[in-house]
Amino acid sequence: MQERVLFGAAYYHEYQPHDRLNQDLDLMAAARFSVIRVGESVWSTWEPENGRFDVDWLQPVLDGAQARGIAVVLGTPTYAVPPWLARLYPEITGERRTGQRIGWGARQEVDFTHPGFRFHAERVIRKITERYADHPAVIGFQVDNEPGNELLHNHGVFQRFVDTLRHKYGDVQTLNDAWGLVYWSHRLSDWADLWTPDGNVQPQYDVAWRQFQADQTTEFIGWQADIVREYARPDQFVTTCIAYERPAVADDELVRRLDVTAGNAYYSMQDGLRHPHAGSAQQGWTTNGTWALYLSADRMYSSKQSPFLVTETNAQSIGFPWNNRPAYDGQWRQAAWALVSRGAKMIEYWHWHTLHFGAETYWGGVLPHSGQPGRTYREVAQLGAEFEAAGSLVVDLTPDSDLTLLYSTPSKWLMQKYPALAHADGSPDERSYHGFFDPFYRGAFDAGLQVRILHTSQFTGSVRDHPVLVVPALYLADTDLLDQLAAYAEVGGHLVVGPRTGYADHEARARTDVQPARLADAAGVRYDEFSNVSVEVPVRGIGLELDADAAATRWVDGLEVDGADVLVGYDHPHFGRWPAITTRAYGAGRITYVGTVPNPALAAALFRWIKPASWTELPAGVTVTSATSADGRRLRFVHNWSWDSVGLKVPGRAHDVLADQPANGELELGPWDVRVLVELDQ
Amino acid sequence: MQERVLFGAAYYHEYQPHDRLNQDLDLMAAARFSVIRVGESVWSTWEPENGRFDVDWLQPVLDGAQARGIAVVLGTPTYAVPPWLARLYPEITGERRTGQRIGWGARQEVDFTHPGFRFHAERVIRKITERYADHPAVIGFQVDNEPGNELLHNHGVFQRFVDTLRHKYGDVQTLNDAWGLVYWSHRLSDWADLWTPDGNVQPQYDVAWRQFQADQTTEFIGWQADIVREYARPDQFVTTCIAYERPAVADDELVRRLDVTAGNAYYSMQDGLRHPHAGSAQQGWTTNGTWALYLSADRMYSSKQSPFLVTETNAQSIGFPWNNRPAYDGQWRQAAWALVSRGAKMIEYWHWHTLHFGAETYWGGVLPHSGQPGRTYREVAQLGAEFEAAGSLVVDLTPDSDLTLLYSTPSKWLMQKYPALAHADGSPDERSYHGFFDPFYRGAFDAGLQVRILHTSQFTGSVRDHPVLVVPALYLADTDLLDQLAAYAEVGGHLVVGPRTGYADHEARARTDVQPARLADAAGVRYDEFSNVSVEVPVRGIGLELDADAAATRWVDGLEVDGADVLVGYDHPHFGRWPAITTRAYGAGRITYVGTVPNPALAAALFRWIKPASWTELPAGVTVTSATSADGRRLRFVHNWSWDSVGLKVPGRAHDVLADQPANGELELGPWDVRVLVELDQ
Amino acid sequence: MQERVLFGAAYYHEYQPHDRLNQDLDLMAAARFSVIRVGESVWSTWEPENGRFDVDWLQPVLDGAQARGIAVVLGTPTYAVPPWLARLYPEITGERRTGQRIGWGARQEVDFTHPGFRFHAERVIRKITERYADHPAVIGFQVDNEPGNELLHNHGVFQRFVDTLRHKYGDVQTLNDAWGLVYWSHRLSDWADLWTPDGNVQPQYDVAWRQFQADQTTEFIGWQADIVREYARPDQFVTTCIAYERPAVADDELVRRLDVTAGNAYYSMQDGLRHPHAGSAQQGWTTNGTWALYLSADRMYSSKQSPFLVTETNAQSIGFPWNNRPAYDGQWRQAAWALVSRGAKMIEYWHWHTLHFGAETYWGGVLPHSGQPGRTYREVAQLGAEFEAAGSLVVDLTPDSDLTLLYSTPSKWLMQKYPALAHADGSPDERSYHGFFDPFYRGAFDAGLQVRILHTSQFTGSVRDHPVLVVPALYLADTDLLDQLAAYAEVGGHLVVGPRTGYADHEARARTDVQPARLADAAGVRYDEFSNVSVEVPVRGIGLELDADAAATRWVDGLEVDGADVLVGYDHPHFGRWPAITTRAYGAGRITYVGTVPNPALAAALFRWIKPASWTELPAGVTVTSATSADGRRLRFVHNWSWDSVGLKVPGRAHDVLADQPANGELELGPWDVRVLVELDQ
Repeated sequence: MQERVLFGAAYYHEYQPHDRLNQDLDLMAAARFSVIRVGESVWSTWEPENGRFDVDWLQPVLDGAQARGIAVVLGTPTYAVPPWLARLYPEITGERRTGQRIGWGARQEVDFTHPGFRFHAERVIRKITERYADHPAVIGFQVDNEPGNELLHNHGVFQRFVDTLRHKYGDVQTLNDAWGLVYWSHRLSDWADLWTPDGNVQPQYDVAWRQFQADQTTEFIGWQADIVREYARPDQFVTTCIAYERPAVADDELVRRLDVTAGNAYYSMQDGLRHPHAGSAQQGWTTNGTWALYLSADRMYSSKQSPFLVTETNAQSIGFPWNNRPAYDGQWRQAAWALVSRGAKMIEYWHWHTLHFGAETYWGGVLPHSGQPGRTYREVAQLGAEFEAAGSLVVDLTPDSDLTLLYSTPSKWLMQKYPALAHADGSPDERSYHGFFDPFYRGAFDAGLQVRILHTSQFTGSVRDHPVLVVPALYLADTDLLDQLAAYAEVGGHLVVGPRTGYADHEARARTDVQPARLADAAGVRYDEFSNVSVEVPVRGIGLELDADAAATRWVDGLEVDGADVLVGYDHPHFGRWPAITTRAYGAGRITYVGTVPNPALAAALFRWIKPASWTELPAGVTVTSATSADGRRLRFVHNWSWDSVGLKVPGRAHDVLADQPANGELELGPWDVRVLVELDQ
Repeated sequence: MQERVLFGAAYYHEYQPHDRLNQDLDLMAAARFSVIRVGESVWSTWEPENGRFDVDWLQPVLDGAQARGIAVVLGTPTYAVPPWLARLYPEITGERRTGQRIGWGARQEVDFTHPGFRFHAERVIRKITERYADHPAVIGFQVDNEPGNELLHNHGVFQRFVDTLRHKYGDVQTLNDAWGLVYWSHRLSDWADLWTPDGNVQPQYDVAWRQFQADQTTEFIGWQADIVREYARPDQFVTTCIAYERPAVADDELVRRLDVTAGNAYYSMQDGLRHPHAGSAQQGWTTNGTWALYLSADRMYSSKQSPFLVTETNAQSIGFPWNNRPAYDGQWRQAAWALVSRGAKMIEYWHWHTLHFGAETYWGGVLPHSGQPGRTYREVAQLGAEFEAAGSLVVDLTPDSDLTLLYSTPSKWLMQKYPALAHADGSPDERSYHGFFDPFYRGAFDAGLQVRILHTSQFTGSVRDHPVLVVPALYLADTDLLDQLAAYAEVGGHLVVGPRTGYADHEARARTDVQPARLADAAGVRYDEFSNVSVEVPVRGIGLELDADAAATRWVDGLEVDGADVLVGYDHPHFGRWPAITTRAYGAGRITYVGTVPNPALAAALFRWIKPASWTELPAGVTVTSATSADGRRLRFVHNWSWDSVGLKVPGRAHDVLADQPANGELELGPWDVRVLVELDQ
Repeated sequence: MQERVLFGAAYYHEYQPHDRLNQDLDLMAAARFSVIRVGESVWSTWEPENGRFDVDWLQPVLDGAQARGIAVVLGTPTYAVPPWLARLYPEITGERRTGQRIGWGARQEVDFTHPGFRFHAERVIRKITERYADHPAVIGFQVDNEPGNELLHNHGVFQRFVDTLRHKYGDVQTLNDAWGLVYWSHRLSDWADLWTPDGNVQPQYDVAWRQFQADQTTEFIGWQADIVREYARPDQFVTTCIAYERPAVADDELVRRLDVTAGNAYYSMQDGLRHPHAGSAQQGWTTNGTWALYLSADRMYSSKQSPFLVTETNAQSIGFPWNNRPAYDGQWRQAAWALVSRGAKMIEYWHWHTLHFGAETYWGGVLPHSGQPGRTYREVAQLGAEFEAAGSLVVDLTPDSDLTLLYSTPSKWLMQKYPALAHADGSPDERSYHGFFDPFYRGAFDAGLQVRILHTSQFTGSVRDHPVLVVPALYLADTDLLDQLAAYAEVGGHLVVGPRTGYADHEARARTDVQPARLADAAGVRYDEFSNVSVEVPVRGIGLELDADAAATRWVDGLEVDGADVLVGYDHPHFGRWPAITTRAYGAGRITYVGTVPNPALAAALFRWIKPASWTELPAGVTVTSATSADGRRLRFVHNWSWDSVGLKVPGRAHDVLADQPANGELELGPWDVRVLVELDQ
């Protein structure tokens, strides 16, 4: 059990132009750092020439950390291949298209499945791990970094893809039937007939290809983890750092090979943290909007359904060179506490120093280029003191959830190539899966509710664990899963189904059932047509109250009611014939069907109808989230995401954890402020 | 002579997961289908392995159709090459750039000129045609599908291009002179010096290259047609399905090798059919706007100047996955009657089923994925009944035309690489030819006039056939053609010349004449400069009346009047020195010169001045078009392209063909409604 | 000493379909042309086959020019390689990416460093130069044309790049240290380890790569110039035509190998010349806005800090086919006089004829395609008469400057790959260097001040020559230069420092100093953070007066005041803690620090504070610039960049040079008009 939230930064002393090890570590200690991550980016330092190793250089860093009570996560450097290896074996270079090698000069240019790479990777992993596993400062290992960055098209990768298909389907005729290769004359006569992915336009192929790519990542990381475990002490964990946007990552599958989930939480600072979020800033490898920050945390929790490590998060800024946006005062604390409130048990900045050279010169660290502590350091140090004050109370939290959102990685992948949604200009939206998913998450968040995210692989049908289950855009689903969803409602759950759910089977074949497939009867609605919409369609509340700005967006299912009650209708000469949202009691539970992408006002109204927030009438800009501590106490996290100082009433008796004083009655928050309360009478 | 408009769909029973042949054909019969298209997409089903043929599978489909009185158009499958052939002879793969092969996985990836492809194509064509030509259900053949999809850069293609130039020009010095290769040191010393098209920037090269590419398509389709004719009965037609946007298609030349024109008519549904059209939605492989739907029909009529088959048109939706837009009630009927009114004698949906797999899963068929008839089927079936009611009266119509627009495919091609118009942001508009052409078509349409489109190859100079001839953007024109245009006016035609017409010769060399070349004297205007304009330039009516919103757009010729009368002037401190539109009596006729791209208000005003519509004072949203039936009767097609019910006065005595009742006096149309009238006293 | 401004056009008689030499030259003479440029584009005419030369064809052109008193600049044709050479030695083809050859068909497709190219280039250069150097009409030579168009990735180029690094750094460890190759495992074990530039993301590599590429251009042009000088008479100059936007040009270095600077001045005409400039039209190979035209002229002056030749400037229009914008009456005169006022001693249109074929068919010449003089010719001829009237008075002017702007080509290059600024949509702005630089230039221009541009290589620290020195975005700067800047202020200069200046060293390594590095103490400000901003940030004037629309844009340095006075502050809850502009007396001088990109209102206010314009209260649209003639007289150039006629008071006694009459008291200017005054009592 950790004594407090692990707090620190990635630390690259080897990148510094001058020795400043002790100065750095002293500054860290003063900021209450308790962890650093080291060593994962410098294979060419560990092994400057083929087979010539230099593994001692890290010793002073580990010793210095140990001397100050700072723990170390030791990385293996396999994501950054040395030039000598690239020179010796050009065939290990990754290919983004068949035969077109990635240019060297960045990192992750390699076909990590190639045995020529694996041989060298294994050797350096063993050298480093063997050398330092026993060091008392080392609490765990990060293997590789942000894996799954490429869809590799190398010859060997493709041939193993064909082998995988051969093993799965047995003969080409079975594959022809499963994939519908009668279409456009694609029937294979032999396995050698299979085309490479470069020109593929068949969704069924894409499903297999994307899963295969993610499997490569899982296998590679698992392989590394197993090697490291040969050396690791039982008290040391093994993980990797997940960048959730990487194309070849199935996070729920990947973390099964690891001891703990660890990932990036990069977010837009400054006005990007305003709540409620205005505008429609795109999500990407950084989140935009307070709700999206929470979504990223809840996705990390979801990988293993347990607390997680934040291996990287914004220090001064997040890059690129044209995107420097250091936080407003208070925002670093706010974001960190938000992450902790959702289960983070480590907050590790990327990174301590700001680099003086290289591609990431404008990924601002805790220290600026001058190496002298500035505003970022001061803000971070205040947070360090807070974590120290809070101690173990905030470690290993179980974040509260009012409802559960079901997440489908394969559906996300498929909609990247076959988006169901368009941008405003009519072009395809490659983030269509999240185009459906996010408005539901955000609606719940705006309604003051908290969300658990569940991978389809984790769904058990438990109504107790998941009294409300929201399922938008579960496009790829096998029949069993759809039947489990209906059964879940039948035994008492409230199933909220969104557009595209159940439409296709596990091979992305559109189902021949009436839609929503295998749910239509239970939901009391059916449709056989649907429409994209380019402008907002006004809606009318029938079974629930709506603000004037509530609207449907982007998609309309042509729902015919067959037993359901209508909650919301469209105000439109054509779409008005169909309801937008319906609900129907089913068995001991209920199925609500949402036939559109609700805009924020409509989504929030829907979720207020589904479940009232526990703490209402909050001032604008204020959110309250909650969690249960490892010892069973109830915690409240109160954020003010605005420039205005606010006051709010605290219901019941509570203690202000950070101020260490009672927090009964009125609570005052300054701009961009946060409070942690522990409830005293529950 | 057909008994009624052929009505049906492309039918791919072989794509269905389960046998439902009889159910499908019964549903078709109930919807009054009279035709299906089959077999054109599945070479790998016809010939699963090299030289192993399986040609019997289609028999039940043909027999079942025949049993229900449904005719069949049988396709040859050459546009979709089987994987085994791609594997055996990778050299047949098409190249979009020299040496860069197209990835396999879609269709039309082949260099269809390659003898290795031709050998296999011929074999399978003969097998299929021989097997089924005698089937009584087969009324015709479609060879290949939507040809001309690529500009092929394969070695053999390029070498034959050079041979073609050698045969045409004889020696390199002649080519050097003709193409102006003195420019930028491009003079050839030998035919081997000719550069490949990849880096070419010379317009003269581009003219030859594009014509050569279209010639390949024409030759290939003609070659197939000739093979099929060896087996076809005299009563069977041979055609192909033309996608008019394909880069390597000269439709007027292509159809000379075919018995009848057949093509796609894909259009934006829902608000995309509002009239008058608001906004500036781009045209593409789907049309946007009612006027653009008519334009697509008139282009199909123009290929052969005769009635045509619509081999593909919107069923439930037209794809892609992010662009599902099923029609409003009534719109399917409206569009089909619009096409028929302009000469379509077949309406064939793409397609019957919606596919469960493959790239076109979201090209919605008549039936949805469930296979159960829904709204689309019901609407289509209503139309089937209407076609049955109308019978032969509406087959083989000659659409009326108030004026003729001259179309230049080579000018279109050239302006794709050398656009004369810019987008609003200043970037080149690859559709510049239509950027000039379409506003004239639309202006006529908005003015209630009907248009015949004529290829330059079809122009005879006849004033009787073409009392008004509108010629915008005829950029590439040989001297004879320009002189014919002047002669046409001299003997009584009203020639309306738009910008860019006559500017270059047949080699795309800017002429040395005073502009408009060879027309300046007759038109009474001349210019030696011109300007793109980024914003609308206000205009003043001088010889004609203008609405306040009339304006000039995109282009201004610097016209100096030399005998012409000014109709419209610019309201601008610089451009105001020049007129926008002039007119001048010339011989027995007249030449009107339009020096700009008129906006809709200006274009409509111009055409109202040129010729008043025969049926005026129509309610907003209503169009009336007309045609002459094969037996000489006069037909009127009245459409209401809006949500508002409207009433309008019918001049004279008429019979409502579909309601089979008199239509004298007041006619009532509901939202998105259509009426077909036959005049009783003419 | 020239008798008058050289005035003429590029002349390609060889491009004409018919002989019109005498007619052309007569028209030129009538327009007072005094110079033509010939021969530089037609290697395949000079040498139609390998080793077969035809060099006599130009003789009539030179003789005809000579007979009319028209001088000739003779070009070498090496930028346009003949097809036979491309065919014989495909290995000379340039590569934009390693192994990917540029397609032939335009010009400048060659790896001009390849010995196979050099052999042939030298031979043709010698043939042409030897043949014509003695011709009395030839006053100078232009070698090649618009060089530096490509970053060449050919094998030989890259290997010589590695050699250059080896010679500079000696061993790989030194390079590893200098470039920080410890980062991301990039440490080299051997020179053969260096990756090609295709995939490079390391700024340090990019710095060397870009300088190396520019060095190739300089070497190539210098090599040609030296060959030509073997034949040239002492009175003949050697130059090349510089397109300043070319990626591989360091103009200050390039012109050291030449006798005189020569370059393009392409500018947007029509509303693109309005002053003050509205909108934010992008700059590119054409300038947008009056201020930007002056900036282009001042950059040409800066190359050698001396008068220059304009080898190409807009005739009727500047291309492409979709961008024809012939000037309003008066604008050609305005632009030419603007260029002359800043030191141009030649105005040469591109070009005389408009071409009838080839890629540049729509680069409008002085004559239109008809070859008959039109409005452009008339306007140009009027200008020719004015130059004749002005005579030597306006030749070899020294343009006045109120302040000096320091220009850093390496900083520009680096910010192309690592932009510090974003576009409005968040995407990187590849023109970030000018994103910082231009607002300072424009602010000075809008404030009525004149600017000298100085390359860092030209900076001497002289306060007398440069009483005010403005230094924005000098990102790459070695320590000596930064110290010289401080010293300059200390001895009396007014140093105005803009954002990003001094941030990195000569290797693009962020400095470890407190920022602004080596200037912080002297400037009395320091910062360790900075922020991009997406919207304008309002500002408050403290030490200077501001208009209500003054604002900060794009970038904010987090300035902490340490001895400076605040001139301008931000009005923002976060940024408001920092000043936007500060100033501090330092030694005998002053350092003003500008921590943001000022919008036009803020920039103009800043420069009005720095130095009042000498001639104020001008009507809107009017600019006055000034220069000193070669004989020491003072000239004023008064422009009215608007449609409104204006009157203004002339201070003191002056003579109107073009009207040859006194210009005392009131001066009247028509729309788009210009006056040249010489002061009589100074």
